[in-house]
Amino acid sequence: MELIEKLQWRYATKAMNGQKVDQDKIDTILKAISLAPTSSGLQPFEVIVITNTELKKEIQKVSWNQPVVADCSHLFIFAAWDTYTEARINRVFDLTNEIRGSKDERLENYRQKLLSVYPQRDEEENFQHAARQAYIALSQGLSAAAFLGIDTTPMEGFEPEKVDQILNLREKGLRSCVMMAVGYRDIENDRLVDQKKVRKPIDEMVTFIN
Amino acid sequence: MELIEKLQWRYATKAMNGQKVDQDKIDTILKAISLAPTSSGLQPFEVIVITNTELKKEIQKVSWNQPVVADCSHLFIFAAWDTYTEARINRVFDLTNEIRGSKDERLENYRQKLLSVYPQRDEEENFQHAARQAYIALSQGLSAAAFLGIDTTPMEGFEPEKVDQILNLREKGLRSCVMMAVGYRDIENDRLVDQKKVRKPIDEMVTFIN
Repeated sequence: MELIEKLQWRYATKAMNGQKVDQDKIDTILKAISLAPTSSGLQPFEVIVITNTELKKEIQKVSWNQPVVADCSHLFIFAAWDTYTEARINRVFDLTNEIRGSKDERLENYRQKLLSVYPQRDEEENFQHAARQAYIALSQGLSAAAFLGIDTTPMEGFEPEKVDQILNLREKGLRSCVMMAVGYRDIENDRLVDQKKVRKPIDEMVTFIN
Repeated sequence: MELIEKLQWRYATKAMNGQKVDQDKIDTILKAISLAPTSSGLQPFEVIVITNTELKKEIQKVSWNQPVVADCSHLFIFAAWDTYTEARINRVFDLTNEIRGSKDERLENYRQKLLSVYPQRDEEENFQHAARQAYIALSQGLSAAAFLGIDTTPMEGFEPEKVDQILNLREKGLRSCVMMAVGYRDIENDRLVDQKKVRKPIDEMVTFIN
């Protein structure tokens, strides 16, 4: 299957060559990210897409100085909601009514259920839950980029509090949780470019119960 | 792009028709799951794939009684490592040396770094970290299934402790974190089958900094 071939092709690129990725391809990757399923359809995250050289270098300093942070074409920062609020929940349900052109009783009951649970819950628990949804979206972004022949590096190796400060994320009710460098591999300089992909045998990962 | 069309096509299927998915397609979905990138390449999760009718019904009872849990063809349960141990970390680095046929000093230093941090860290923190990696894999499974024209439902709506008990996961050092029902939509009975997909406008999700 073509998708599997592309997923085999991709790897966590450690050196990129600085070549710019076309905007229409970036838009396709963002479309895939937007289409990712999320819990209750809340899409509880935003994505900051950085091409600014100075800013990438600033973020590199709080990202273990990894070269790819500066050398990528576009740096995607996934920032999850710091918590679930009434307004955020209502926005999604209102939008659903608007797009589907009708109110649905089942949906309204579900809205009330979420409103009675999520905003009251511990903020850290809410953030952790939102961050997981961002990872689903990250993954669809990685797959879409691979499908387009574009390299990516998913990255947790950064200081989230410092990235939050640099981008003023906390003031917007957001917290950075994972990054994705997007660009083209530097074939000359990436030590991983020719390395065999390492995965555990499938039967070590899977148990079938029939 | 074909992948975007497939991601548009997919939706969280609420009713499936019981038709079996061929084993080769299940294998392809598992291959995509296995190819998902994870932090330090640890693949810190396992997948339990259930077709057994009685067992699906038992899990349905602790999953808000959602019909799709029983009516799907294959129920995938993603179970993340309960913590990072020395043995689990060493397994992955040893495998890497085996597959690549050489020891790499940089890699060995990295192994020592992980061994000096992860096993000592709080178990809950390790589990939460492992669970996020499982979500990346879940997402690649969802995309691969969609690419094959197979329906899926990602599900958090279950009682993890009870699923863990039913499958004896804790004894294996695992904790269930998310499920994926796999099968074919029941066009007659799924209330969501004709509903418009709801997503926030892209510019509400993205900020470009150029």
